[in-house]
Amino acid sequence: MQLRNPSFAAEINESFAKQTIMALIGAELTRVEPGLIEITLPYRSDLAQQHGYLHAGIVTTIADSASGYAAYSLMPPNSEVLSVEFKVNLLRPAKGEMFSAVAEVVKSGKTLTVVRADVFATGEGRRDLVATMLGTMICLSK
Amino acid sequence: MQLRNPSFAAEINESFAKQTIMALIGAELTRVEPGLIEITLPYRSDLAQQHGYLHAGIVTTIADSASGYAAYSLMPPNSEVLSVEFKVNLLRPAKGEMFSAVAEVVKSGKTLTVVRADVFATGEGRRDLVATMLGTMICLSK
Amino acid sequence: MQLRNPSFAAEINESFAKQTIMALIGAELTRVEPGLIEITLPYRSDLAQQHGYLHAGIVTTIADSASGYAAYSLMPPNSEVLSVEFKVNLLRPAKGEMFSAVAEVVKSGKTLTVVRADVFATGEGRRDLVATMLGTMICLSK
Amino acid sequence: MQLRNPSFAAEINESFAKQTIMALIGAELTRVEPGLIEITLPYRSDLAQQHGYLHAGIVTTIADSASGYAAYSLMPPNSEVLSVEFKVNLLRPAKGEMFSAVAEVVKSGKTLTVVRADVFATGEGRRDLVATMLGTMICLSK
Repeated sequence: MQLRNPSFAAEINESFAKQTIMALIGAELTRVEPGLIEITLPYRSDLAQQHGYLHAGIVTTIADSASGYAAYSLMPPNSEVLSVEFKVNLLRPAKGEMFSAVAEVVKSGKTLTVVRADVFATGEGRRDLVATMLGTMICLSK
Repeated sequence: MQLRNPSFAAEINESFAKQTIMALIGAELTRVEPGLIEITLPYRSDLAQQHGYLHAGIVTTIADSASGYAAYSLMPPNSEVLSVEFKVNLLRPAKGEMFSAVAEVVKSGKTLTVVRADVFATGEGRRDLVATMLGTMICLSK
Repeated sequence: MQLRNPSFAAEINESFAKQTIMALIGAELTRVEPGLIEITLPYRSDLAQQHGYLHAGIVTTIADSASGYAAYSLMPPNSEVLSVEFKVNLLRPAKGEMFSAVAEVVKSGKTLTVVRADVFATGEGRRDLVATMLGTMICLSK
Repeated sequence: MQLRNPSFAAEINESFAKQTIMALIGAELTRVEPGLIEITLPYRSDLAQQHGYLHAGIVTTIADSASGYAAYSLMPPNSEVLSVEFKVNLLRPAKGEMFSAVAEVVKSGKTLTVVRADVFATGEGRRDLVATMLGTMICLSK
């Protein structure tokens, strides 16, 4: 994996700050490395599905943003990233005090980048893999 | 498609009211029929990704809940529904004043139900298909 | 959906003839229309999984080729099509005398095309939907 | 990951021998371990798509069987395994002399097992990841 945009980290931080949904749900960008992004989200009772667990759509929200920025981190300067598609397997109930989505680039291409993201729940001394995403991101020129 | 739970509509309304994320984002349950559910979400600027469009995770949030309830509507009494997995294709930027996720059961089985959901954006005289989901739901006994 | 390549049908027939796997399994191209392709496959006992049903990979083989050509049919002249990704739900055992994969374009874009394909099994007076695919195809210039 | 069926390896070999499609394409079962299966396939010119590369459906065929048996290896005695769904990303043209699908269980559950499979192409001194699958398998009692 080749780094082509030396200011990727600053640009990702700036873009993340524009994702207003992240502020609404309380998500934070906690790791920004070439090809690897982590987004962390504390549990809140207003992010839940009917059993009180984190809603699968919110699990997806942090996994998708982490995946998009993981792809972006390896793109050339003056790129934009969009999600083409993703698939998520929900492995266990998303029960925990803290959630983190860790996305890693599987294959970085000129147009398309394939990314895998794992979402972990921590709490009560446990750290469980609760979901895994496999997705495709597209690079557009600004 | 066979209806086995005569009180499915009341139970879906009750369950939806417990999905606290729906109140947070402002989503409403607008159609509840056997095998078909619609959830509607007005655009708000705090639900956006970096370009101001509805975040793909929020598109997924309403599509997943609609899919789960579409599956539930055909399950026997005393069931619970959980999302096993879903795949979403983002077809166009999710740009509009109002979004609706319409989910329909493709195949209802004893354990697993396969559901398709389309998400439409309306605004400025247009109605565009912005995303399509294909997902699998599981029926658990309470 | 706009037709841009008037000789799409001849080119799809020519390309299909080069897909040597189609001859090996006995598949035929049975409908070639703008945005819609059908591939038909008679059952043979050497295409089976452990219970004697058509193997999910062969179900996928005809669905993927049908999807690729459905996408190609709407591409401009001098294009090549490649599969980016697909997701398949296996809805019922692929049991029948004849199988047909019917692919239809959901969204045709300059670079990416999203296609849905349904695979039907016929036999003993029945026609069952046994699988459904949602996939993404990319257009490359020759 | 817990091993519950001590004769899993013999049963997988027996089942593989019944998958007639494996003999047709020339695939072999080359690793059978708890939660990990490898299937190997030498390239043949009659397994190709229009450019002469291995057809994505055949890539899927070996990845799906490897995934099913990886799931089966951790199931209790007297189980049957069926594919519920899978998603495949095609990362590079499937060009090589030899292909291997390596499947590993991500999460083994009572009813559903989630499996990841990577398909590698080797040839001319290279070994490339050409596809990755994320799929769901179901355990049925015989």
